[in-house]
Amino acid sequence: MLCIYELEDFDGTTSVPLSRVGADARAALFTDARTAYSFTDVPVDDAMLTGIWELTRWAPTAANLQPLRVLFVRTPEGKERLLPHLDEGNRPKSASAPAVAVLAVDNRFHEHIPHILPIKPELREHFAAEPAQRDGITSFNGPLQAGYFILAVRACGLAAGPMAGFDAAGIDKEFFPDSSWHSVLVVNIGHPAGPPEFGRMPRLAHEDAVAWV
Amino acid sequence: MLCIYELEDFDGTTSVPLSRVGADARAALFTDARTAYSFTDVPVDDAMLTGIWELTRWAPTAANLQPLRVLFVRTPEGKERLLPHLDEGNRPKSASAPAVAVLAVDNRFHEHIPHILPIKPELREHFAAEPAQRDGITSFNGPLQAGYFILAVRACGLAAGPMAGFDAAGIDKEFFPDSSWHSVLVVNIGHPAGPPEFGRMPRLAHEDAVAWV
Repeated sequence: MLCIYELEDFDGTTSVPLSRVGADARAALFTDARTAYSFTDVPVDDAMLTGIWELTRWAPTAANLQPLRVLFVRTPEGKERLLPHLDEGNRPKSASAPAVAVLAVDNRFHEHIPHILPIKPELREHFAAEPAQRDGITSFNGPLQAGYFILAVRACGLAAGPMAGFDAAGIDKEFFPDSSWHSVLVVNIGHPAGPPEFGRMPRLAHEDAVAWV
Repeated sequence: MLCIYELEDFDGTTSVPLSRVGADARAALFTDARTAYSFTDVPVDDAMLTGIWELTRWAPTAANLQPLRVLFVRTPEGKERLLPHLDEGNRPKSASAPAVAVLAVDNRFHEHIPHILPIKPELREHFAAEPAQRDGITSFNGPLQAGYFILAVRACGLAAGPMAGFDAAGIDKEFFPDSSWHSVLVVNIGHPAGPPEFGRMPRLAHEDAVAWV
């Protein structure tokens, strides 16, 4: 199977530099990477976290609307405010992580349209009047960008520990009380304390997930 | 900014092989990659499409539930069935692409739980009785996996053209009439015909998207 990724000798006429993502990078991003549950105390500095966002933000969204937001929690005070809102079983994971990203969506993303979608500035007023359409944008493009974010963490040489078990209303009240941000995922970030204690869980067989016409 | 990605000399104690995703790979995945709107006639064979899925399926989902499905459309007959259900402005894009992926979510993902979540097989019956909880899983993890898929296309040296403008009910009736699959995104795949005719649209400034505690 893996031989199909070895594209370095591909001789088609194309403007795509086919060999720029090598087999080793693909393994680090997808096939070898594991979700981390505990972390070493090797720090992750703010420049590195900024770098993760700097990658994430360039991947595509519908009409370039970019509804994802991120709160990086890395001070002891920030951790203390965050941990009570996580499911109990998740607290030790985030306590151990040198940085935790609270991923959120901004329901008022349309206010940025004149800047981010300069070819259709009138969409700001359109979305302002259509909150249900805004929800449609955030509910799809928020998790889409969360997928980019998780792979960007790995692309920066760090391990990600995404967690859905938390009290979103509690986090929103604590961190975003007068804001249009709403938390959707918590991602622990750092250097894993060691290999996971269990093997990888199975992925679906191709015939259960892929069809062809 | 980019200097922070140069991790090759990082000397922390970590089990993560920090240099496996280099600056060139990060550019090809995130910062240099562009959405493609027209494609060359260089073919994309089925092994390559299988390879895209082979990467996508290993990235993490909530409780390993993996609700994303994909229909690869690459025959003339398949294209003829697909194109009428796309927004008119999107038809030339998919007509030009050597392959088109219809990304879908499977509302009956729980039937696979004994295989994919062997530590909690009882969740199959739990989710069977909770269709609203199933919708919560698919509505978040479907787009999350769509994000992985788009970056996997790029990781395989191809260009992706994701499109939200299509008649989902029409596609579902045409391709998934007796199935629990529901289309959520259409992604054109191939070698771009040339550089895009316009520059990249702006991304949000950090201060509009990132907060710190």
